[in-house]
Amino acid sequence: MDIQSIASLIGAEYTGENFEITAMNTLKDASASELSFVANSKYVKDIQTSKAAAIIVDTKTQEFVPEGCVALVVQNPYWEMAVLSKKFAPLIEDESLPEPIIGEGSKISNKAEIAKGAVIGKNCTILAHSYIGCNTVIGDNTVIYPNVTVYRDCMIGSDCMIHANTTIGSDGFGFATNAMGEHKKIYQNGNVIIEDDVEIGSSTTIDRAVFGATRIKKGVRIDNLVQIGHNCEVGEYSVLVAQSGLAGSTKLGRNVVMGGQSATAGHLEIAPFTKFAARSGVTKSITQSGLTYGGFPLMEHKLWLKLQAKLARLIK
Amino acid sequence: MDIQSIASLIGAEYTGENFEITAMNTLKDASASELSFVANSKYVKDIQTSKAAAIIVDTKTQEFVPEGCVALVVQNPYWEMAVLSKKFAPLIEDESLPEPIIGEGSKISNKAEIAKGAVIGKNCTILAHSYIGCNTVIGDNTVIYPNVTVYRDCMIGSDCMIHANTTIGSDGFGFATNAMGEHKKIYQNGNVIIEDDVEIGSSTTIDRAVFGATRIKKGVRIDNLVQIGHNCEVGEYSVLVAQSGLAGSTKLGRNVVMGGQSATAGHLEIAPFTKFAARSGVTKSITQSGLTYGGFPLMEHKLWLKLQAKLARLIK
Amino acid sequence: MDIQSIASLIGAEYTGENFEITAMNTLKDASASELSFVANSKYVKDIQTSKAAAIIVDTKTQEFVPEGCVALVVQNPYWEMAVLSKKFAPLIEDESLPEPIIGEGSKISNKAEIAKGAVIGKNCTILAHSYIGCNTVIGDNTVIYPNVTVYRDCMIGSDCMIHANTTIGSDGFGFATNAMGEHKKIYQNGNVIIEDDVEIGSSTTIDRAVFGATRIKKGVRIDNLVQIGHNCEVGEYSVLVAQSGLAGSTKLGRNVVMGGQSATAGHLEIAPFTKFAARSGVTKSITQSGLTYGGFPLMEHKLWLKLQAKLARLIK
Repeated sequence: MDIQSIASLIGAEYTGENFEITAMNTLKDASASELSFVANSKYVKDIQTSKAAAIIVDTKTQEFVPEGCVALVVQNPYWEMAVLSKKFAPLIEDESLPEPIIGEGSKISNKAEIAKGAVIGKNCTILAHSYIGCNTVIGDNTVIYPNVTVYRDCMIGSDCMIHANTTIGSDGFGFATNAMGEHKKIYQNGNVIIEDDVEIGSSTTIDRAVFGATRIKKGVRIDNLVQIGHNCEVGEYSVLVAQSGLAGSTKLGRNVVMGGQSATAGHLEIAPFTKFAARSGVTKSITQSGLTYGGFPLMEHKLWLKLQAKLARLIK
Repeated sequence: MDIQSIASLIGAEYTGENFEITAMNTLKDASASELSFVANSKYVKDIQTSKAAAIIVDTKTQEFVPEGCVALVVQNPYWEMAVLSKKFAPLIEDESLPEPIIGEGSKISNKAEIAKGAVIGKNCTILAHSYIGCNTVIGDNTVIYPNVTVYRDCMIGSDCMIHANTTIGSDGFGFATNAMGEHKKIYQNGNVIIEDDVEIGSSTTIDRAVFGATRIKKGVRIDNLVQIGHNCEVGEYSVLVAQSGLAGSTKLGRNVVMGGQSATAGHLEIAPFTKFAARSGVTKSITQSGLTYGGFPLMEHKLWLKLQAKLARLIK
Repeated sequence: MDIQSIASLIGAEYTGENFEITAMNTLKDASASELSFVANSKYVKDIQTSKAAAIIVDTKTQEFVPEGCVALVVQNPYWEMAVLSKKFAPLIEDESLPEPIIGEGSKISNKAEIAKGAVIGKNCTILAHSYIGCNTVIGDNTVIYPNVTVYRDCMIGSDCMIHANTTIGSDGFGFATNAMGEHKKIYQNGNVIIEDDVEIGSSTTIDRAVFGATRIKKGVRIDNLVQIGHNCEVGEYSVLVAQSGLAGSTKLGRNVVMGGQSATAGHLEIAPFTKFAARSGVTKSITQSGLTYGGFPLMEHKLWLKLQAKLARLIK
């Protein structure tokens, strides 16, 4: 999409020469052909170092845009980003892509659907009623149980096992809201990358990234009914027990354990070898490795036990 | 089903003339050809104003039935209502209905199932392994991702998006229990109505109403793994974050936010623009608009923060 | 698999005569042709009474193995059991099994998949995109809604109803972890048995047992998005409300009620007629019948209400 069309679509003034914008991205990750945006004053610091070709800003953040970068000034940059995100969304199914490639020894149910452009490795098993979206790539020896849905453009490693009714790559929960309380969808144009030797339970949901990737690293074990928000990163050998959840952009280090029904807020970083007891509510990043936490608000698990013992005495 | 057969089936005495009962319904909503019931003394007040043709009552509530309305007296009205609910349940799939109608420009996967009597609007996309039940009506431009199940008789608006493995219109969790602790299913003969511009995440479950409709209003955003019980109403532009849940018959006003893993009890009314922090447990109706709550038991979120700070000091 | 191959695979010394091992099992349940293991010192007491043909032990537990039983000594018995579990896992789909048998009057969608060796009773309804695995047996009059997955070797009774997108028999969450923090899958070679007259909601997950069976007894009612771990037993007429969860090996007596979002730890026994309020966190067994509990940590519900009232006063 060219910059003049973009400016016109979002009602920003632009009189410079026309050029092509290839994608949208964050201020940090945008390349010199990409468009970015500032929707929150805490990202103002990233404007000046951004390599983006153009940035959607409001009148207050306009001044920070560096020379050589186009400032597209609008009233509500986040809303206009949402409007534009739809224009950069690929087709859900693209019939112009090549026929899928199936590796030697793979058994694909004739009741599974492998979309155009997908590449399945060797000795995989894909059972009935599963769906592998366009351009999705799967490694060797991976087992996909029935009724699994993998959206387009995702990557799944070798030696993985994905249980029934699980969804990989559905849209992250992203939208802009205007002053009337109306919402505008932010198309999630990133993907999900699942590394080798990952097992995922049934009815678990792993959302695709808005930009970039949601990443599940090597050796991770995920139980049933787990929610992983867009742009999360789950470190090697981490364990997520049933009904736990990670809100968007949270990063777990390696060998983190999320107990049953535990959950994190978004945008946190959790040190390696941290353990969260069942139903922990994690609202802050954890920097020290190897400790065990519990409760909501979160505290060290041994403190939580002590506190609960004290409270129990209150009723005697 | 005629009144004499109904009386005979549930062991109630009826010697009047025979007439047809078209459906079962609540005391409030029953029309003059419908049957209702009193299963809970708190509904006694609704008996006298009910337009129902007949009401299932026990010996204690019998006296309140107005003249001209048939009283069917049984020992356990709720159990007998359950027995009858099966008789009024439509076929799961009715082959006598007309072929489904697919609007212009809609792309339906040949691995999707569109049942008889369904009507799909224009420019919809329905992906593989989805199921659209009998008589279900879908508007224009709506996208149904793979492995979605929509039960019969539901309505989905235009410009909606339903992500993979989500279920719309499964039976509400309803049953009668007798003195032996045995359960009898109450067939859920209502439906789900989803208005325009609603996005629903993956592996979310929205139950059909026992009578009438479960309703998701315009512009609502629902995340993954959310549970919405039978007969709920979700107001315009409300936002339900992952793993939250609404118990049956709860009504959210417009722009209510349910944080992650929050939940409500049943039969509540929540004022517009109320926000529930993550993991709130809502057990009472909220009448004042625009406040933010947290905790379980629920309190204003700022009080909850204060209380938790106090508790943390207890262990020092 | 013969004992010499087993010893060689896990690096244990074995010089005795060769014989066939038919399966792996717990110390308690192993028959005279089966192999067991001691992975936890609390099971040492079960070694001497085990009928197992051979037991995988470490140097510390080796001495308890009774005469006539082969001791296979390794460094990490749990890890080696995991290695072996794969060898005893049946094929996911076994094409050598006989064609499935469908009872009179049953309606099976041509978009459902019934795997080899399955047996479906009379007057069942199995809707599109459901999957019934190899050797799974279903009784009479059972309804399976769309997109349900039942893994191989399970048993479902008569008069059951399983709602859309639910998974029965996926692998329990089992793995061994070594000193490097790496995980090795324990193949779950047991099954799920669902007795008669059970209704299960949508997107619920019931894991198969590692050995033996996960069992849902007669008349149970399970709501949507419920998690039931491997080797659990749910007593007759128990009720599990939406988003509740049972960790592995927990046994509920009859007519237990799990409120919405409540959960238990693993290996508990819950007395009949116990009620857990919404969001109860159950970490200990309950021996007295008929009481109502709430909170996390758990206490009698009336105490929890009292405690919360006291806490609320703290902030005044």
